[in-house]
Amino acid sequence: MFKESVLEKKIYYHDTDAGGVVYYANYLKHLEEGRTEYCAERGIDTGKFAEEGTYFVVAHIEVDYKASARYGQTIKVNTQIEKISRSSVVYLQTITKEDKLLIISHVTWVCVNSKFRPVSIPDEIKRALEK
Amino acid sequence: MFKESVLEKKIYYHDTDAGGVVYYANYLKHLEEGRTEYCAERGIDTGKFAEEGTYFVVAHIEVDYKASARYGQTIKVNTQIEKISRSSVVYLQTITKEDKLLIISHVTWVCVNSKFRPVSIPDEIKRALEK
Amino acid sequence: MFKESVLEKKIYYHDTDAGGVVYYANYLKHLEEGRTEYCAERGIDTGKFAEEGTYFVVAHIEVDYKASARYGQTIKVNTQIEKISRSSVVYLQTITKEDKLLIISHVTWVCVNSKFRPVSIPDEIKRALEK
Amino acid sequence: MFKESVLEKKIYYHDTDAGGVVYYANYLKHLEEGRTEYCAERGIDTGKFAEEGTYFVVAHIEVDYKASARYGQTIKVNTQIEKISRSSVVYLQTITKEDKLLIISHVTWVCVNSKFRPVSIPDEIKRALEK
Repeated sequence: MFKESVLEKKIYYHDTDAGGVVYYANYLKHLEEGRTEYCAERGIDTGKFAEEGTYFVVAHIEVDYKASARYGQTIKVNTQIEKISRSSVVYLQTITKEDKLLIISHVTWVCVNSKFRPVSIPDEIKRALEK
Repeated sequence: MFKESVLEKKIYYHDTDAGGVVYYANYLKHLEEGRTEYCAERGIDTGKFAEEGTYFVVAHIEVDYKASARYGQTIKVNTQIEKISRSSVVYLQTITKEDKLLIISHVTWVCVNSKFRPVSIPDEIKRALEK
Repeated sequence: MFKESVLEKKIYYHDTDAGGVVYYANYLKHLEEGRTEYCAERGIDTGKFAEEGTYFVVAHIEVDYKASARYGQTIKVNTQIEKISRSSVVYLQTITKEDKLLIISHVTWVCVNSKFRPVSIPDEIKRALEK
Repeated sequence: MFKESVLEKKIYYHDTDAGGVVYYANYLKHLEEGRTEYCAERGIDTGKFAEEGTYFVVAHIEVDYKASARYGQTIKVNTQIEKISRSSVVYLQTITKEDKLLIISHVTWVCVNSKFRPVSIPDEIKRALEK
């Protein structure tokens, strides 16, 4: 396993729904932020690669919802790499609240060109992801 | 005043927040949909003009929140034009629920080129908006 | 397999992101709407059961992203039941665009009480879901 | 003028739309966060007052959109109080990017009871807001 990245987020009203807890799709925004910060901490600027025609798109997600967070609480988005292949990366991401597990997820990124065809992950990114 | 366009929308969980009612920013999504449908009903394809380098951007909004909608309720987004100038359009949009007024808004669109500089609204669009 | 429910949705700017296509988490809003309409067509008012202390919460999702939708396009959310157990329901939901498959998903609902403990699905709902 | 509160936010994909910049309604989420942090820095826990039946609801907004932010950029949400009355508070909030002004807004909060009737702002909150 590679090193984990941790992002703290406070829950605001825009995260929640009328059930009183965070809306199930909004955790995916926190997970996006977690992956972006994982990359940023390793010097990977996904925006720069996008400008050059290399994109990472989410191809598959699997999310287990164990417990919920409420308005005003602080969650931690814990991001690590589960597996790197020629053209894909699987992230293992959890969301916790005071060490209670709320979410376990597996998110698969595929590296594609501007025609959305899978291509090899650039070596520079591969090496950085493995840090 | 020009003819009004009416769009019906049902409220889902993703519209609401932990206060039990629609989150204040989410009404702006309904208002966007109302303006798009107002244009579509008049044969204006804003996507096509965007591809040609003419965009409509929101420059100013004023919104009065009078009352709220809840999960499962149906709202009506009522859109009409308040004023058309050389390079801007002011929409008067209300949101109602069974004839109760929830929202009154004034939204100003400015017509810009790809460098975000104001330009004259194409005549074709001006004529269609006034229908 | 039980009868499918189909919901048509037009894509607006609020659905999309700077990648030019629908943001990956926003499809989950369309899937929520699909499940709600599946229930509504069978006379199930999930809001009423929530008031009585019986809730359906999403416990697990698995989503395959095959292709994307863009601003102005119309998608279809196709919802059917894959499996019903004592306290859970698995939905098989796809999103299509002119018969092209964009999304395949499996969404597990668990029936819980106000303390978020799993409880048996009320018979009235079970019978209606199987219609 | 009272003391300003400043909140830094990084822009992620979920903030943006297919126009390549932050979606106009999403800035209102940043403004919500700015007001919450303004209060939190002064020891006001709006969640606690909500539990006791005193709520602050947005009654009016006016927003000028001057310029936009893009994916990966960092914005500052600057929040201060413009005016406090018996039952309402007007916030003056700006959003800036490297000292460039993107957004100017005036947001009116009304203090209401659980029946959404305006009530006097509790003295404890009034004093804290004026810090």
